[in-house]
Amino acid sequence: MSFSVQDCQCMAKAIALAKRGKYTTAPNPNVGCVLVKDGQIIGEGYHRKAGEGHAEVNAAADAKQRGFSLKGASCYVTLEPCSHVGRTPACATMLVEQQVAEVVIAMVDPNPQVAGRGIKRLEEAGIKVRTGLMEHSARALNPGFLSRVERKRPFVRLKLAGSIDAKIALANGESKWITSAHSRSDVQRERAASHAILSTATTVIRDNASLNVRFNELGSLAEQLDETLLRQPLRVIIDRKQRLAEAAQDLNIFKNSESFWLAGHQSQTQLPAAKQLVIEDTPNFLPQLMQELAEAEVNDIWVEAGANFAAALIQANLVDQLICYQAGLLMGADAHSLVGFEGYQSMSALNSWQCLETRRIGPDIKTIWIPQAQGTH
Amino acid sequence: MSFSVQDCQCMAKAIALAKRGKYTTAPNPNVGCVLVKDGQIIGEGYHRKAGEGHAEVNAAADAKQRGFSLKGASCYVTLEPCSHVGRTPACATMLVEQQVAEVVIAMVDPNPQVAGRGIKRLEEAGIKVRTGLMEHSARALNPGFLSRVERKRPFVRLKLAGSIDAKIALANGESKWITSAHSRSDVQRERAASHAILSTATTVIRDNASLNVRFNELGSLAEQLDETLLRQPLRVIIDRKQRLAEAAQDLNIFKNSESFWLAGHQSQTQLPAAKQLVIEDTPNFLPQLMQELAEAEVNDIWVEAGANFAAALIQANLVDQLICYQAGLLMGADAHSLVGFEGYQSMSALNSWQCLETRRIGPDIKTIWIPQAQGTH
Repeated sequence: MSFSVQDCQCMAKAIALAKRGKYTTAPNPNVGCVLVKDGQIIGEGYHRKAGEGHAEVNAAADAKQRGFSLKGASCYVTLEPCSHVGRTPACATMLVEQQVAEVVIAMVDPNPQVAGRGIKRLEEAGIKVRTGLMEHSARALNPGFLSRVERKRPFVRLKLAGSIDAKIALANGESKWITSAHSRSDVQRERAASHAILSTATTVIRDNASLNVRFNELGSLAEQLDETLLRQPLRVIIDRKQRLAEAAQDLNIFKNSESFWLAGHQSQTQLPAAKQLVIEDTPNFLPQLMQELAEAEVNDIWVEAGANFAAALIQANLVDQLICYQAGLLMGADAHSLVGFEGYQSMSALNSWQCLETRRIGPDIKTIWIPQAQGTH
Repeated sequence: MSFSVQDCQCMAKAIALAKRGKYTTAPNPNVGCVLVKDGQIIGEGYHRKAGEGHAEVNAAADAKQRGFSLKGASCYVTLEPCSHVGRTPACATMLVEQQVAEVVIAMVDPNPQVAGRGIKRLEEAGIKVRTGLMEHSARALNPGFLSRVERKRPFVRLKLAGSIDAKIALANGESKWITSAHSRSDVQRERAASHAILSTATTVIRDNASLNVRFNELGSLAEQLDETLLRQPLRVIIDRKQRLAEAAQDLNIFKNSESFWLAGHQSQTQLPAAKQLVIEDTPNFLPQLMQELAEAEVNDIWVEAGANFAAALIQANLVDQLICYQAGLLMGADAHSLVGFEGYQSMSALNSWQCLETRRIGPDIKTIWIPQAQGTH
């Protein structure tokens, strides 16, 4: 298919609109839409929240409010219009009814409920359809949604925070504070952008962690985000040995129990969890958990836990990004290491990670690494 | 003093010229000079190498070759013109004889042989002198020279190279290769820019390290640098327990013995060292060594050694920059840590390091840290 410079400009605009949903759309994908007639934008829209209008519907409403009819317009949308009636009517049907002349789509929706059916409906109605414009950027809008639909597991990002010598606590356990308030505010922003936070009973008990999003710690994001739209991520806590029940009942994690899910080998109904994920005690526990989270429509997960859980996730090949915060300290050889696995006998056996970006966060450094093919070092 | 935009432009040019001497001037400082008449540059020069012309002399020669007289000219120079007759005649005298009208100086020379005497000579001859223009940038040209003259010790940069989890070798000792060929080439460029390389008998024996500069591994620098100008840094090896003599006599470090210095508690005349630094066996060994190296006119030192020597240097407060190379690997909790010290009981007892810069070197990350005031974390 061929695309003009104007096509690219319109799709870039649609992608920028889609990003506005970053903190609110889950479990739905981020989608943006631009309507164009006679070389002029007549309507813009994005999907903000599940249950509210899709991007196409919002763009159509915008055009109508501006006094434009969609008849003969071109529609630029980052994801294939839906063909199924869900919480809202099918967008493909709406576009047919409004008699748009053309639909340009960045990527086909891999969701089996759509998967080409939206395109088919448009084409059957005689609407010209072009697909694949800026597909790579459109995919990057929704790593979590795509992972859940295509890989049947959430997109997993693991937070690691340590010193220059990658230590997370002194030998005596002291670890407050290694990274700066700037990094901790960045972690708040990462939590706010995440559909769920995954941690362990060990971490929750040791730190009495809330693992919630605190609006007044969001820094620059607080200026962009409407506090009423702030979504508290689900907090999924793994408790394989029923340790939470033994611990004090007033743990911070129990507050706002509607966003607290428990994962373990048996149900702990005495705990105020909104959901209990009961999974057999096998070496397959973590992949099984991920599959169940995907089935529960969890798109992406932000992991904050200790060195041993980090090691277990990494060794199960379940980490899609390492998010490393590094503070300007040297803590010494007897301090606790960043990841808990042991026993590698050869450099060639190590998995490699590719640097996606590195930047300064206040006095600290934040680096994002993604897995490279195994044994490529 | 007040300076015009043109003053700044001329001094910025002089600073850029000074940088050309980076790989060759030691033990002399990098200095650049620009001569200006009627708003036009009539001569440019920089100091290339000890024993060759100073920047002012080279700029004057350039002006002469272009057919200009210095009479009435303005001279912009990054360091106070010398007043003493050394390997070359005093530059202040030359500028007086050539009847320049004005001299603009970025920084006074802290060398006690100059230290204002150059300025005094110029002023006594009726030449207008202004000082302090872009002083900060001018100081940054010569951290090693200034450290030696002002602090009586070299400027010390410590190389650290490890994985994401800051490990330098697997538990079984395997460590080849953690960082990439890109980083190793960068290390070659750092060596080439250094006056001396400091290491230990342990490292030299374990790696059979040459610690030299290999022109064909300099990457982008090889394109800028004339191979005939390539200076092999001094290699100063600490051998406090006479281990080099016990090791094989064909260690690579013994090649090019004119650039091999030995430091220890006794002379080892059987080893082919160009210089033997004999220092008493006290806890003051490292500061004493640094003082002796400064007295031997060593400006700056690039340290490549193991975790224990890194720890000793850091704990002696002798490190001015940490140069950290980080590769995209996770090596595990049982692998060897980046720095060897132990026993910190409190986060508040740790020294902080401030990030000067971070950037990607091929697949790795290079970060430069400088010490912050003690106990400021």
